Amino acid sequence: MKFGHFDDDRKEYVITTPKTPLPWINYLGSSEFFGLFSNTAGGYDFYKDAKLLRLTRYRYNNSPVDNSGRYYYIKDGDTIWNPGWQPVQTELDSYECRHGLGYSVITGAKNGIKAELTAFVPVHDPCEVNRLVITNEGSTERKLELFSYVEFCLWNAEDDSTNFQRNFSTGEVEVVGSTIYHKTEFRERRDHYAVYSVNVPVDGFDTSRDEFVGLYNGARNPQAVTEGHCHNSIAHGWALVGAHQINLTLAPGQSRTFIFVLGYCQCPRDKKFVSPGVINKEPADALLSRYQTPEQAEAALEELKEYWEGLLSTYNVDTPDQKLNRLVNIWNQYQCMVTFNMSRSASYFESGMGRGMGFRDSCQDLLGFVHLIPERARERIIDIANTQFSDGSTYHQYQPLTKKGNAAIGGGFNDDPLWLIAGTAAYLRETGDYSILDEDCAFDSDFSIARPLLDHLDLSFNFTASHLGPHGLPLIGRADWNDCLNLNCFSEEPGESFQTTGPSEGPVAESVFIGGMFVKYGNEYADILRHIGKDERAGQVEEAVALMKHTLETAGWDGDWFIRAFDAYSKPVGSHECEEGQIYIEPQGMCVMAGVGVESGKAEKALDSVKERLDTKYGIVLLNPAYTRYHVELGEISSYPPGYKENAGIFCHNNPWIACAETVLGHGARAFEVFKKTCPVYLEDISEIHRTEPYVYCQMVAGKDAPTFGEGKNSWLTGTAAWTFTTISQYILGIKPQLDGLMIDPCIPSDLKGYTLVRRFRGVNYHITVDNSAGAEKGVKQITVDGSPISGQIITPVTDRSDVTVSVVMG
Amino acid sequence: MKFGHFDDDRKEYVITTPKTPLPWINYLGSSEFFGLFSNTAGGYDFYKDAKLLRLTRYRYNNSPVDNSGRYYYIKDGDTIWNPGWQPVQTELDSYECRHGLGYSVITGAKNGIKAELTAFVPVHDPCEVNRLVITNEGSTERKLELFSYVEFCLWNAEDDSTNFQRNFSTGEVEVVGSTIYHKTEFRERRDHYAVYSVNVPVDGFDTSRDEFVGLYNGARNPQAVTEGHCHNSIAHGWALVGAHQINLTLAPGQSRTFIFVLGYCQCPRDKKFVSPGVINKEPADALLSRYQTPEQAEAALEELKEYWEGLLSTYNVDTPDQKLNRLVNIWNQYQCMVTFNMSRSASYFESGMGRGMGFRDSCQDLLGFVHLIPERARERIIDIANTQFSDGSTYHQYQPLTKKGNAAIGGGFNDDPLWLIAGTAAYLRETGDYSILDEDCAFDSDFSIARPLLDHLDLSFNFTASHLGPHGLPLIGRADWNDCLNLNCFSEEPGESFQTTGPSEGPVAESVFIGGMFVKYGNEYADILRHIGKDERAGQVEEAVALMKHTLETAGWDGDWFIRAFDAYSKPVGSHECEEGQIYIEPQGMCVMAGVGVESGKAEKALDSVKERLDTKYGIVLLNPAYTRYHVELGEISSYPPGYKENAGIFCHNNPWIACAETVLGHGARAFEVFKKTCPVYLEDISEIHRTEPYVYCQMVAGKDAPTFGEGKNSWLTGTAAWTFTTISQYILGIKPQLDGLMIDPCIPSDLKGYTLVRRFRGVNYHITVDNSAGAEKGVKQITVDGSPISGQIITPVTDRSDVTVSVVMG
Repeated sequence: MKFGHFDDDRKEYVITTPKTPLPWINYLGSSEFFGLFSNTAGGYDFYKDAKLLRLTRYRYNNSPVDNSGRYYYIKDGDTIWNPGWQPVQTELDSYECRHGLGYSVITGAKNGIKAELTAFVPVHDPCEVNRLVITNEGSTERKLELFSYVEFCLWNAEDDSTNFQRNFSTGEVEVVGSTIYHKTEFRERRDHYAVYSVNVPVDGFDTSRDEFVGLYNGARNPQAVTEGHCHNSIAHGWALVGAHQINLTLAPGQSRTFIFVLGYCQCPRDKKFVSPGVINKEPADALLSRYQTPEQAEAALEELKEYWEGLLSTYNVDTPDQKLNRLVNIWNQYQCMVTFNMSRSASYFESGMGRGMGFRDSCQDLLGFVHLIPERARERIIDIANTQFSDGSTYHQYQPLTKKGNAAIGGGFNDDPLWLIAGTAAYLRETGDYSILDEDCAFDSDFSIARPLLDHLDLSFNFTASHLGPHGLPLIGRADWNDCLNLNCFSEEPGESFQTTGPSEGPVAESVFIGGMFVKYGNEYADILRHIGKDERAGQVEEAVALMKHTLETAGWDGDWFIRAFDAYSKPVGSHECEEGQIYIEPQGMCVMAGVGVESGKAEKALDSVKERLDTKYGIVLLNPAYTRYHVELGEISSYPPGYKENAGIFCHNNPWIACAETVLGHGARAFEVFKKTCPVYLEDISEIHRTEPYVYCQMVAGKDAPTFGEGKNSWLTGTAAWTFTTISQYILGIKPQLDGLMIDPCIPSDLKGYTLVRRFRGVNYHITVDNSAGAEKGVKQITVDGSPISGQIITPVTDRSDVTVSVVMG
Repeated sequence: MKFGHFDDDRKEYVITTPKTPLPWINYLGSSEFFGLFSNTAGGYDFYKDAKLLRLTRYRYNNSPVDNSGRYYYIKDGDTIWNPGWQPVQTELDSYECRHGLGYSVITGAKNGIKAELTAFVPVHDPCEVNRLVITNEGSTERKLELFSYVEFCLWNAEDDSTNFQRNFSTGEVEVVGSTIYHKTEFRERRDHYAVYSVNVPVDGFDTSRDEFVGLYNGARNPQAVTEGHCHNSIAHGWALVGAHQINLTLAPGQSRTFIFVLGYCQCPRDKKFVSPGVINKEPADALLSRYQTPEQAEAALEELKEYWEGLLSTYNVDTPDQKLNRLVNIWNQYQCMVTFNMSRSASYFESGMGRGMGFRDSCQDLLGFVHLIPERARERIIDIANTQFSDGSTYHQYQPLTKKGNAAIGGGFNDDPLWLIAGTAAYLRETGDYSILDEDCAFDSDFSIARPLLDHLDLSFNFTASHLGPHGLPLIGRADWNDCLNLNCFSEEPGESFQTTGPSEGPVAESVFIGGMFVKYGNEYADILRHIGKDERAGQVEEAVALMKHTLETAGWDGDWFIRAFDAYSKPVGSHECEEGQIYIEPQGMCVMAGVGVESGKAEKALDSVKERLDTKYGIVLLNPAYTRYHVELGEISSYPPGYKENAGIFCHNNPWIACAETVLGHGARAFEVFKKTCPVYLEDISEIHRTEPYVYCQMVAGKDAPTFGEGKNSWLTGTAAWTFTTISQYILGIKPQLDGLMIDPCIPSDLKGYTLVRRFRGVNYHITVDNSAGAEKGVKQITVDGSPISGQIITPVTDRSDVTVSVVMG
């Protein structure tokens, strides 16, 4: 069943009912100010940090779901309705929500009145703009009252939702004309306030939730709206809201446009007040002055659309498969941007109050983002490196505001260091900007002992190389990529964190997966070293990699697949010897991607085993058989009911690894089959089963052992986005940035007879045509660049012109 | 305006409308299992720890307010209603909520059907019992469908409300017959589950919130109820609920009684499962078997009422002032029990997720609780002492489950050590049980270095004596009793904790208040020392106390009142020299209570200044003039808007100190006047202004500088309860336990011509008659014990009989 459809021309997903299986959301904002925006206008805004600088409240996991947002009520006699259905839930005559790139448009109509709400965050201002156009579509004059409503968060979302004995007494506002200033704690240490305004004179306002909504009412039936007039309340403590009332008369056919702005304003510390207790409104005035007219709002929206047009023109493919095109050209890249911006902080499944930026997460997010805005990727790499410890190990997370490592979580996740190589290598391949390697990066944020990024990469490599266990495989520490495989934890107490309980590293438990990473990213590191003339070190690295490759094929091999790990007793995990969890997906994907076992046939065997034992119609489960009981020696992975999350769920992040691995073996059809299974655009028709948004990936789909097989969870913020884009753009469609240039190496189903593609690479647009009339799955017969054939598959970067035509013939 | 009335015979407060100014709540449970229960059946249950073992969900600060609870829906054709009005909010024909001691009864009626819900936690079982009696009061047969509903919390309340990416996948239940077993995480490290059952066969059930309530509906309009039938859902992840459906037919006049039980069940670790994945239901079966019949439920309720009768018989007064009687005999003692049990953890203003037990809080709570159950007080004193550091300083908080100090907050609150003396002295005066002083108590929970409690008291005293500042006054550290006066903090960054930022102690900033405590509790400590024959040490203590008394009267004296403190620059705080905050309440109360300045007339002057500068019709504000701007050198106190909380709010906790101080000077009328101003039972008639429950104290009332002057906040969990009971029972009504016996020393308004009182003291009931026909405010002319006059005011404890008659003549 579908709940909407794609509009590829406008790069929008069009939702045609407010009652989606779950709220289907969008992200507004591209750099500092962000808004989560659901298909019923639910969600919230924050500035930079979803925990510390949250502008509006959101009630997660509420019942009914998703009933905090920026709401507009239209009172038309006794009928009260919202353009987005929520929160009043008055049945609408028509409803539509269009989620676009950085903006959303909700249009609702009732009894001849149409209301169109366009919400976006401008490219250059810290505010959410809501343009509301109300139109009388009937033939008689209509009198309406319009009410706006947001509920302010007292900035720190965690404190706001727990510390009531203080917070019920701190709230303060000012109101001048149509502008509501939320200034809680501005009197003390904050130098920022929020502003909520509309570009017309108002007929009333409220700032006290109890006055506007009523204590025993809610957003679904605010008493002020029912009464038809605001109370002009000035809130003192308790819950603060912003509400405007505008009475309007519309002639037949008449439209009126209102521009509402919710913004974040900062004052110089020495200019906070203009008189005792009265805040300096200059920053707000300046901001609001830019959104006073419909023309200004329209211009800002256009600028946003152009911004995205520009970004997406970096990679644009045209294949006969329209679903594939929309995924690659629009939604997957869009999600890559969102994951880069949000890490795992704020979604409808991440409360915005938990973890900071993940070291591993952010490094992987770079893989799918680096082509969009390389400068921001560069900055991020350096931020990440600055948190590394001097022995090459790393904090597992760092805080986006302070950019310091999160001591509460600490380190000991032994895959982390190698991901720094992965992210940096991707940046170098995309940009060729080797100067980044010379950037001095701190250790544990201590810049007095900073060393060049290259040294950090070397420490990363060395950390793994020097922390090997009994089989010569990397020690796993607290966990590797799979945060839930905790081989040194042995937790018996409920509530203990599986990630931080017990010693951070054991001297025994090893990870085959990290071994695979060591080969893959060790090779990438060696490649970098050779390119900057450090051949001796490159040779050492290659030697260590070769040894690891051998170890993986011997100690790491179970007979038909790669073992997952060795536990603290050196017993294999993910082996036919195990009672449960006999085979895991991760080492098969990573080892084969790294090229391990390709010559020996083990790679082929491993992928056959994946197909036989892990594959399902909705994707490849993480392991099999699922753990039916808690294994104290394995940790969190066995804490989930079978089929969910890491315990044999379809973990979307690692499915593309198998797709990539299949391309390594030249299996284009199988690679694309694997790719499609978890790809949301191909699941649109079963949205009633999949439930999450059909335009973005979710982290997990319930596996075959789960009673809700096929149900998606944790949409939006997942490393899946970056890995699927890497898979489809590089491994399948075959446009692979290399240090030397742009490699063309498609691996596709034989029935895909060709496609064209534009790829901007190092400032030049490559117009690529792939001809697969031969029906190959892999292999390039000839590549022609601007009419001249080249040898090999790598196009040397062009510097003398801005457009290059490339013809590729497969076969 | 009133929203109900007291029913003193039944020891209940009767609320006559569901729309109270705020939810008015009650506490169920007396030892391990607790429930918060509002006048509309809102609230939640937990076992021992409101954060870690929460059984049901509660959405704090929701809008509408208070819409999570244990709800019963009656579907009567198209009419759906709840006996407590919430959450459907169907207008009722009649409504009444009776909050009693440890139980509540809500009765609602609609269209000839009456539903009476009695909720309580039995004295000896970890469960909440809900007895629901449905009666057909009409003359025709009626067919109804009854639905029950609770929403399970996944145990850890904090994790439950933030960690959705995990928690949406972990939920598990089992259902057998009428019993729903909530077993999330039982598969791994938990050895407990929750059970929700009813004593009759059911016609349906649900455990999935989405199935019962519906995704876009809420508790106010559950889809299963609207449809008239449950879905018999077995939840797999997402949100778990317990819902039963019972179809019933009632003949005219017929009643049916249903017993619902929500319980906590624990299994031996080696007997968690009876077969793979199937939990051991024995503990649940055993629990439920005790609540299968109305007779069993009634017996358990009676046992609870007798339990409370017994407790309250410890102190029972009969004065001509009925309000005073109900406060003293019922509600104040009840609140003392609740604060002892809860500390500051779980109320409608404390989220249950924050702090543990306060060191200072718990010591003070003892003052009002020790007479009720001295054995539990003894245990608590030892728990507290076990967390003390070996230098006499203390953690500021400790966790109730682990009984270990809270390292995140740490120590440095320099009043804390002296409160241990205060609590222990109160215990000794009440019980005469000196053996407690010999109990070995740990340091920082390390029992290998344990020393007798007496040594801990000595370290407490010594810590203050050895940490004096430039004026010879005690150093304040992070803060003293007033957590918001942070003289060593100097925080400039928003969001920083005022309590843990900066150095824990400065070498300069001093507290006059701790000086007052040093005198008061130093004297109490010397008294103890003399009673156990340690005269030499007693002499040293008295010497130090005398010196401090002198210092307070010189360096600590501002001319018309006691200074509050000296800041980190040694500038006075709470002095006429200050621009704002010239006079504070705390040092006036504590110093005069300690007897400082009584001879010199400074005490009288200080209290006059309080009356002149701080008193208002709703109580005495904490300071004046209020701080209008942030003072970085003072910290949090200046972060509140004027009139709120510590910034010139009426902080109820310290108002009784002034009442006590007035009795020290013999001002009975003024003492009682001060006492009455913040006393909730006297404020019942202005409940629309006061807003919080008229049967319990709140922490704070908005002061005269606040726009909401008179508005109460943070009801229930406040040290106010203990201090007001101490004030009224000991300082005003004059029944003062002493180490030597029971002192009779009333200080009352001259128009109170007499009263009688029963006080159980060390196992003996003293039947006391006070004759004040003389119209005195203070002074005892004669005391007769069982007909024999005694000299002095102290009755030596009787050991040879259980009842003693005491006649007291004032004059």
